[in-house]
Order: sequence, then C-alpha cells, then structure tokens
Amino acid sequence: MITTHDILLSAREARPALQRTSTEEKNAALLAMADALERNAAAILAANAQDMEAARGHVSEVMLDRLALTEGRIAGMAEGVRQVAALPDPVGQVLREVKRPNGLVIRRVAVPMGVIAIIYESRPNVTSDAAALAVKAGSACVLRGGKEAFRSANAIVAALKEGLTAAGLPADLVNLVQDTSRESARELMTATGLVDLLIPRGGAGLIRSCVENATVPCVETGTGICHVYVDAEADLDVALNIINNAKTSRPSVCNAEEVCLVHSAVAERFLPRLRKLLTDDRAAAGLVPVELRLDQRAAAIIPGTLAGEADFDTEFLDYILAVKVVDSVEEAIAHIAAHSTHHSDAIVTDDEAAAGQFLALVDSAAVYWNASTRFTDGGEFGLGCEMGISTQKLHPRGPMGLEELCTYKYVITGSGQVR
Amino acid sequence: MITTHDILLSAREARPALQRTSTEEKNAALLAMADALERNAAAILAANAQDMEAARGHVSEVMLDRLALTEGRIAGMAEGVRQVAALPDPVGQVLREVKRPNGLVIRRVAVPMGVIAIIYESRPNVTSDAAALAVKAGSACVLRGGKEAFRSANAIVAALKEGLTAAGLPADLVNLVQDTSRESARELMTATGLVDLLIPRGGAGLIRSCVENATVPCVETGTGICHVYVDAEADLDVALNIINNAKTSRPSVCNAEEVCLVHSAVAERFLPRLRKLLTDDRAAAGLVPVELRLDQRAAAIIPGTLAGEADFDTEFLDYILAVKVVDSVEEAIAHIAAHSTHHSDAIVTDDEAAAGQFLALVDSAAVYWNASTRFTDGGEFGLGCEMGISTQKLHPRGPMGLEELCTYKYVITGSGQVR
Repeated sequence: MITTHDILLSAREARPALQRTSTEEKNAALLAMADALERNAAAILAANAQDMEAARGHVSEVMLDRLALTEGRIAGMAEGVRQVAALPDPVGQVLREVKRPNGLVIRRVAVPMGVIAIIYESRPNVTSDAAALAVKAGSACVLRGGKEAFRSANAIVAALKEGLTAAGLPADLVNLVQDTSRESARELMTATGLVDLLIPRGGAGLIRSCVENATVPCVETGTGICHVYVDAEADLDVALNIINNAKTSRPSVCNAEEVCLVHSAVAERFLPRLRKLLTDDRAAAGLVPVELRLDQRAAAIIPGTLAGEADFDTEFLDYILAVKVVDSVEEAIAHIAAHSTHHSDAIVTDDEAAAGQFLALVDSAAVYWNASTRFTDGGEFGLGCEMGISTQKLHPRGPMGLEELCTYKYVITGSGQVR
Repeated sequence: MITTHDILLSAREARPALQRTSTEEKNAALLAMADALERNAAAILAANAQDMEAARGHVSEVMLDRLALTEGRIAGMAEGVRQVAALPDPVGQVLREVKRPNGLVIRRVAVPMGVIAIIYESRPNVTSDAAALAVKAGSACVLRGGKEAFRSANAIVAALKEGLTAAGLPADLVNLVQDTSRESARELMTATGLVDLLIPRGGAGLIRSCVENATVPCVETGTGICHVYVDAEADLDVALNIINNAKTSRPSVCNAEEVCLVHSAVAERFLPRLRKLLTDDRAAAGLVPVELRLDQRAAAIIPGTLAGEADFDTEFLDYILAVKVVDSVEEAIAHIAAHSTHHSDAIVTDDEAAAGQFLALVDSAAVYWNASTRFTDGGEFGLGCEMGISTQKLHPRGPMGLEELCTYKYVITGSGQVR
C-alpha cells in the first residue's frame, strides 16, 4: 500500500505540470476525465456494489442511499466535471495593479494553491467534484474519503487518472489516500510544506477535529446554526414562506434554518400561523411535520415541546425548529451573536433601519434581508460551483468557488529599482 | 491582575461600538490617541526607564536600543497613529456586487475581523502601531508584548485608552495582556470564539509556535529566506546594485536577501565583482563586510567560506550571503522551491522568457523581475502601512495593510425569495 506521505510527495511533484498548462489544455483534461468516468462506469458500479454489500446492516438507510451509485448518478458526476470545464479559469487573473512613483509595476495575480487536501465522508460524487474543482483551480488534490466508500472512490479516481493521462497530464494530479484509518487524516492535517490547503467536508465532528489539529492551513466549513428573525415590521406572509423554505426544503443541509426568532409585537399573530403551516398542514399533506421547540414565551402562545438550553445551540439537520420570542432587533442580534455559527442569518422586515442594523451587526458569512438562508450556495451566488461553504473569517469566507480555491501573489516588474 | 480571559471578554464586548462608529469618528479617535501619547510622554518615558533598568545586563545592546524610548520616538509613534487616521477606511467597501436572475442582490462587503490578537516582542512602538491599525480596520485588539517592554507597553496602552475614552469610544478596544508568562500566549492561541485573528510579529520561533499551536485563525508572518537569481542574460551592473541593496541596506529585516543564485554562464564574470563590492569595497569604506558562504562551484571561482548544508536554509538576518552556481533558470526555480520561505524572490535578467518562467513558477508572496526584494513592504506597495508580511497562502498573503486586516461578508437583499 502506498503511504500517505508518498502520495503527498507525488502530488507535489505532479503539480507544476498544471502551471505550464493552458486553460484550453486544462479544460480538455477535464472533459477527458468526464469521458473516462462514463467509460469506466461498469468498473465503478462493481466497486460500488462491493462497498454497498460491506456497508449493508452497518449503516443507516440514508447513508446507504448516499453511498449508492447508478449509471444515472455516474452520468451526473461526469456532467458535473464538464460543467467545471465550462467555467472561467480563475488562474492568472490580475486582481489589482498599481504603478508606483518609482516605476515598479505591482500586480496582484490569482495563482493556484498548490496541493489541496480534502477530507470528506461517504458520498462518492464528492470525489469527482472535488478533483475537478481542484484541477481547474490549478492545484493537485489529495482526497481522503470515508472508508465505507473506499472501493467506489478508488474506482472513480482510477477513471479520473485515466482521463488525465489521456490528456497528457500527470495522473498524480488526483490522488486518493489508501490508508482509511484515522492516522491518515491526522497525517494530512499536519503535513506542513506538503499540503497548501486542507478542506474538511462533512459533519461537525470532522470539521472540529481538523480545525483543532491542523497545523497546515485549513478552512473551517459548513456547520450552520442559521437564524431567521421575524421583525415587528415583517410581512408575515413573506416570513412564513421564507421559514417554510429555509426549514423544510432540505433540512439536512448547512444553510437550512434551525432557529426562528420572533418579535414579541407579532408573536401572537405569527406563531399560530407558523405552527399551522409547519405541523398541521404538513401532517395533513402527508409530509413530516416540523417539531417546534419553544422558549417559555413562545410556549405561552402555541403548543409544542419546551426547548432545553441546548436547543438553541444545535444544528438539528432535521425537521426540528427552535423558536424564541425577543423584544427587539437588538435582542435578536445579541442572541445570534451568542448562538450562531456565523454561517447564514436572515431578517424579515419592511423596516429599513432594522434591516440595516441587522445586516451590519450580524457577523456571519451571509446575512439576508427578506430572503431564505437556503441561497448560501456557490451555484445560487453565481459562482457556478462550490467546494463547500467557509464559516471562518480568514478568506475564503462563504461559498468557495474556483476563485476562492486560488490564492494570489504579487508579481513586481522593475528596471533595476532598489530601495 | 486581570486575567487574559477577562481581557478577551472585555475586548469582545467593546468591539460592537466600532461597528456603529463612522469613519470620521474613528479618525477623530485615532487623533485623540495620538495626542494622548504625546500628552503622556513623561509617564511613558518613566515606565520605559524602569524597563531599561531591569533589562540592562540581561539583553544585548541591539535589544536595549530597540527597547529605548525618547521624546522623539514617542512623537514618531504619535505621527504613525495620525498617518493611519489619514488612510482610507477599508470597512464597508463593496468588493463585488451581483444581481441574480431571481432578483437577489448579493454584495461582498469588507467588514472588520472582530478581535485581533497580536503577539509581539519588545519594540514598544509596535504597541501603538498595531492598536492604530486594528482600530482603523474596525477591530478591537488584544496585545501581548514581550516582558522586557511590559511597563512601557502598559503606559502606552494607558495613553491610547485615554484617547479612546476622550473620543467617546470604549477604552477596552485596545488592551494589553497583563500576564507575561508563556501561558498567556498559549491562551490567545487557543481562545476559540474570542480571537478572530491572531498575528504573531517576531522571530521564527514565535511564529512557528503560533502556527503549530493556534486553534484560532492565525496568519503566518515574516520569515524570509529571500533569493536573488542572476540569470545568464542579466545586466550585471543591475544585478550588483540590486544584490547590494537587498543584502546590505537592512540585513535584519525579513525582505533582505539571504541567498544569491548565479547562472554558470556569468558566474566567472559576476562573482569576482560581487565579492569586491560586498567585501573589499565595504571593508575599505569602513562598513561591515558581507561574509560569503559559497557552494563548491562558487568557491572554485572566488575565495570565501565553504557553505554547509544549513546555509541555504537559514534566515541569517546578518551580513552573510549564501551563494550557489546553477545551470539554468529551471535549476534556480527548483532550488527556490526547495529552500524558500515563500516570502520574496527575484530574478535579474533581460530575457523575457526566463523572467516569465521565474515569475510564474516561483511560489512566493512576492516575485520580482529586476528589482530588489526589499520592496516587499506595505508602504512600498502603496498600502500606506502594514501589520506585517504574511507568508501563507490563505489570504492575506504578502504585506498586510488595512484592507488585509478586514474580512468580508455577503449581504443579500431580497423581496421574499425562496429556493
């Protein structure tokens, strides 16, 4: 078995090849990678069947569904890679240029990170997504997936390598760590000088472990305790529609709402309608009703579970919504400051001053006025794709598209200037 | 003694005040801080005299000189704070704006980091510099200086707090850690949720300790093993002038040259002139001669110390220059990839293709063509100031001016959009 260290060394060695590759050549390689995925569908499906066989009985049905590949899903992965090929090349963009009085021309130019390591869980499609994004952004990648999907990921990476080779690029631009023990994750986190950027994609435990243990540059991603605050001046129909969308359209994702804050001036009118929409109407329609976890004041207005302390600090990722009554936008902002994970928070109001205050003072990657938190997404932001959503403040913050997977350097041209 | 944890909490509490402060009010506060420094010069000098008294005999003369304050140096510190007041406000700048087909307006807006912690060594002026930059960038700061300068720093911070109070802002926007043991540095490095950005300013040991131990976002700064590569097509006069400047104008700083790479085609003509300029001419002029540490091939051409392995991996910060002969620009690039700290590296050549290759492939914060590495500096880059120079790839990279001390967030305004 090739060691993780050797894989990192090969990635590092392969990487300069991309710096000598034109946009057209890079795009051709991505198309070849997509073709190779489809050409190797049978091998990928066979590997996936083995993963499924081994996982059955040990993991939940939801997990099994995430793990399962089909011809259709493989075609979808190939299509994803082709979409990345179609996006503009972020590398080489001149982000800023200044000519100094002494004649020096100083350009800030977007350049690749180098080697990007991605630690993720068991969705096989992340393998091809992440590889395509890294290659387009000019970086080699070292992928470390979950052990349940190891055979599938290996087959996918073999196909991607075949595509790279066919396009005349080193196969080692895309690599899968072969050691699926915890030790290999630890190795990536501490591979100073070999990993230029580490991106964890997965649950809160994985992310915390990376942030706490990484000595290489690491982007904190994804945990989202997202709030929607219904202000005294909210249009309640708009608020209901936004909360219904933010909570129920896809509760398992990080930009889903977990907490609803309601101004006391509208709570008595709003909460009964919220309860009807999210519980009674959904149950009547045969949908999973949302469990409301209410603070004391909300519980005095509508029935529901009484919220415990932890309910305002939990990413439920489920049909559960914590609800709290507040007396002002300031109280809402203070609550968010104390409990938010700095992902996405929204205010619903027709009061421009309250909105301005909320947008200015809430310290999250994305702050919304009269829109659903579910829009925090590379595609929805117009980036075309994303590697994840950063909740940290060092750049990149928010959805990470191709530009956010690059760094920059200063290129200075002179005619012999000294200082 | 107030604990470091309590100081962090007060900084966090003081911080929102700056978010409600206009540019004019922030500038007025900075001017009040500058005035307070001058008004309290006597107290600062008295505290500094105690520091000097305690340090004498324990630290080098160079250290003592760095520690010493005078009326003139205090006036210089005040002037530095006034210069920061005169710079444009980075906060609130709309960095990007897009209107999506669904009507959402998505703005990327520069916003303050929040609480910036700075761990530095014994230069008292860093105290006022760092505080002024943080406040202008909209952040509270928690400063942790070297213990030799503790009394001076405390007196300086007392003056700065007086200025803040006079301007109607919370004194706790600027804070000095009172515990000068190693424990307090460790506390800042691991104060998750309380420190938004940690900046170490000092020697390689301090920086490594922060990078290795920090669980809060940390910017790696400063260590510079900077190279100047004299290409086969270099104008040798230009090369000599650049190297003389890069090596001798201020050898103790991170953007000074430590290694000279020379193409073999010009080595025999170039090295004797380099030796004459840096050693014989300097000695004749009564200046410290530069010690040349030569690889085998260079040593076959000129006399000098034979370089050991470590000499190409050492930030000398002294009148020492390692010299190596290479056979191509590719070999120079490969040497730099293996030995550089990714700070600043230069090529001297009239060959545009060689320059293009060097500028594209050398992976450093600043790459130069026919100019001295000494220009890597906030002032020289036109940023007006700097908090240090980042050698990491996650933004900020290179000199950190006011903009680089900010983060951004996405502000999204809608009219009820859901996804």
